[in-house]
Amino acid sequence: MVQSSSATRIAAELRQLVAGLRAGARLPSTREIVTRFGASPVTVQQAVRMLVREGLVESRPGAGTFVRHAQPAPRADYGWQTAALGPVRSDAGFVGSTLQTVGPDVMALHSGYPVDDLLPVRAVQAALARAARSRSAIDRPPASGLPELCAWFAGEVAEATRSGGAAPTASDVLVMPGGQSALSSIFRALARPGEAIVMESPSYCGAIAAARQAGLTVVPVPRDPSGDGVDPLVLTEAFERSRARLFYAMPQVANPTGESWSASRAEELLDVVRSNGAFLVEDDWAHDFVLETPVRPLSAQDASGHVVYVRSLTKSVSPAVRIAAVIARGPARTRIQTDRVVDGLYVSGVLQTAALEVVSAPGWSAHLRRMHEQLRARRDALAGLVTELLPAETLTSVPRGGLNLWLRLPSGVDSDAFVAACARERVLISPGREWFPAEPPGAFVRVNYSGPDPARFEEAVRVMADVLAGGGAAGAGAAGAAG
Amino acid sequence: MVQSSSATRIAAELRQLVAGLRAGARLPSTREIVTRFGASPVTVQQAVRMLVREGLVESRPGAGTFVRHAQPAPRADYGWQTAALGPVRSDAGFVGSTLQTVGPDVMALHSGYPVDDLLPVRAVQAALARAARSRSAIDRPPASGLPELCAWFAGEVAEATRSGGAAPTASDVLVMPGGQSALSSIFRALARPGEAIVMESPSYCGAIAAARQAGLTVVPVPRDPSGDGVDPLVLTEAFERSRARLFYAMPQVANPTGESWSASRAEELLDVVRSNGAFLVEDDWAHDFVLETPVRPLSAQDASGHVVYVRSLTKSVSPAVRIAAVIARGPARTRIQTDRVVDGLYVSGVLQTAALEVVSAPGWSAHLRRMHEQLRARRDALAGLVTELLPAETLTSVPRGGLNLWLRLPSGVDSDAFVAACARERVLISPGREWFPAEPPGAFVRVNYSGPDPARFEEAVRVMADVLAGGGAAGAGAAGAAG
Repeated sequence: MVQSSSATRIAAELRQLVAGLRAGARLPSTREIVTRFGASPVTVQQAVRMLVREGLVESRPGAGTFVRHAQPAPRADYGWQTAALGPVRSDAGFVGSTLQTVGPDVMALHSGYPVDDLLPVRAVQAALARAARSRSAIDRPPASGLPELCAWFAGEVAEATRSGGAAPTASDVLVMPGGQSALSSIFRALARPGEAIVMESPSYCGAIAAARQAGLTVVPVPRDPSGDGVDPLVLTEAFERSRARLFYAMPQVANPTGESWSASRAEELLDVVRSNGAFLVEDDWAHDFVLETPVRPLSAQDASGHVVYVRSLTKSVSPAVRIAAVIARGPARTRIQTDRVVDGLYVSGVLQTAALEVVSAPGWSAHLRRMHEQLRARRDALAGLVTELLPAETLTSVPRGGLNLWLRLPSGVDSDAFVAACARERVLISPGREWFPAEPPGAFVRVNYSGPDPARFEEAVRVMADVLAGGGAAGAGAAGAAG
Repeated sequence: MVQSSSATRIAAELRQLVAGLRAGARLPSTREIVTRFGASPVTVQQAVRMLVREGLVESRPGAGTFVRHAQPAPRADYGWQTAALGPVRSDAGFVGSTLQTVGPDVMALHSGYPVDDLLPVRAVQAALARAARSRSAIDRPPASGLPELCAWFAGEVAEATRSGGAAPTASDVLVMPGGQSALSSIFRALARPGEAIVMESPSYCGAIAAARQAGLTVVPVPRDPSGDGVDPLVLTEAFERSRARLFYAMPQVANPTGESWSASRAEELLDVVRSNGAFLVEDDWAHDFVLETPVRPLSAQDASGHVVYVRSLTKSVSPAVRIAAVIARGPARTRIQTDRVVDGLYVSGVLQTAALEVVSAPGWSAHLRRMHEQLRARRDALAGLVTELLPAETLTSVPRGGLNLWLRLPSGVDSDAFVAACARERVLISPGREWFPAEPPGAFVRVNYSGPDPARFEEAVRVMADVLAGGGAAGAGAAGAAG
């Protein structure tokens, strides 16, 4: 993963060598290693020093380098910790299925991150390299973020502000180290342990985990059967029953369902939020991935401070450029900033500078256009294959953007068993269960179309079809019995 | 702060120009701006686009660029939020005094960050630039950190492990986005809201804030008058009274006092921690700044999983390279990792790769030696001036390392008023109050000797002397009355 320097490479070879020697054995001399690996003495000494640091070998001046006597392996029983720590509160299990890295020859439709081909790789590398050579490699940026980057984020939402709205300014923006951190800070700052948070169901599994980590009770409201967000009456009831002050939602191309709110529904739901003295946490995660019509964040129309807006660059710029923004107003913004400062002081200036350069360069909008073309082709190809090869009504909808299709499996299929059976055939997908705050009302899976190798979509969908049909039902059943 | 590109510079000029125009006024044409600033048309268009994004101007194709009609300035009253949010829990006030950036001609002895001269600036820039060109600019590293970096952190502590100890391995390490984040995760993961945490008093203000943010009650134990940590009996009582499971401490060169635990005291205190089924959170913040004798983290001797170790590179490598490590064992490590993953998924690979390159390069130890020489000279100069020019017993001790002196002011002086009076004379120092979890038992200030311009130490100490003596007492008194 890291570009290995020669010292790292030689250290790896030496580790193998050491693993085959007994404690106290002498390593070959620097000169011998130089000859063996054709490296410079400085590089070899560097490699040996790495092994010394790791405790594998020790240098005795004048005598040479020796394999260290093994430390007694600590096989301690940490049972006392179990008593000290008490019951488990939260769960990072979602990371297992959406962030796992995979071996070769696997069809990876499980991830939440677009493959390199969809990223502005050269622009990111150039921007990071330029930032590296600048003062931003050393300076501490302000806690709320680089002013120019704050202005860029504010400007993006301001562009979508219509008359009567309230365009945010740079002083409403907080730069965050990624969208997940933004959600964690918002939940911790705007609610307190034991309180409730209302969420669309299904919803982003990372948001569910962050809310639980903050000690909140997640109150699910089901998606409206019309596909247009949630029913305002159901939302009203949820607020009244739970006394929640937070409603977390993705009005544009929700993850995982791909559904979007209509403008009129958005107004209705925002009215419910306002009349309950609550906050709408608007997660605009798909901002850069919406294919049709410009994105109009609800934040752009929010003059009353009820919308707290989150927007991340990690998925569209680079996983290494962990930069997101929160737009909030009034005391809520202060609370969120306090949480973030206490959690991490500020966000690396080199990442902020690089992010700003990438998104404000003339090439950015051209990149987005190209990426949208690719995503559209990938979405249409996968949706077509699902319609053609899987049972009728498996595809819940063709989303206006995003990175995923949300599939409903036939009645009687266990989605976990289905996912496991597909994995045995080297097709990775995300089980629907992880995306529901409570019991799933059916068997769903999320299939991501932004991963590597879209040429294998057909192969992947055929595997799903096989698992479902014929050997499939048996396969899913057997997996259920075995698991 | 950021190296401004020409577009950024021109955008700044245009913002000034726009500020002087009325809404609807036409901006000069691109050609006119090109001529005026001697920049290329592409650069000028980039600058204009920045202003469009910020909502300051709008382009009308064929007609030109015009100052936008001002949006109605949102002067909303966000009072409803006050009701929704309830009482304030935490405070990031400490950031105000230790992280503030300052204007010219100020003597800055308040910061917690070493000035550039003490950092390996060229090595950092080169390492970041190299990482930028590698796969780490795009790849997602594992959630626990790059394996090679984990091995480096483990190796450092393993080197200090004596026989009978338990050398940590890479699998005990979690890479964190800075020491502050590490503390926040540890406190949230190992205790639950409403529980207590024991801390040395005074202690690091950021740790106090993180504990409160996590909903913990901070139970202070006073420093032992001997200067050797805290009294084991007092610590025992604090554990018994509070039923705390956590003890946060800085055994090596504590911040702010500069005191260190002797080896025998460390053993005694660790025994108290063990017999109370508790964790010692060992903050080795000064690891790279200890001037005498090698640092031996208590973590190196911890076979039973009672020590949770924190060590950051932010202060010694670069404020932009926000990388720290936690070393923990057993279920505690799992809990901390879960908290961190839910809070932010993973740490940017480009920062991890650059950090590893800087600290494992042959130049690192030479850099540390040079930096130590400078720090020793700065410490001795400032300590000498304090002894010479300020009242007897102002200097509490000459620390074995670190970045600060801890000064006790004469009885009757108000430390906040003293700090304010010094600030009016352009000398910035940190008020002692912020470093105490409860009422300060006296008037203290922390004076940092790693800031810019050590040639002005004498001038700064003379200002403190003047404020204390003569106009000083009056100055501090007047400030107290005024503030």
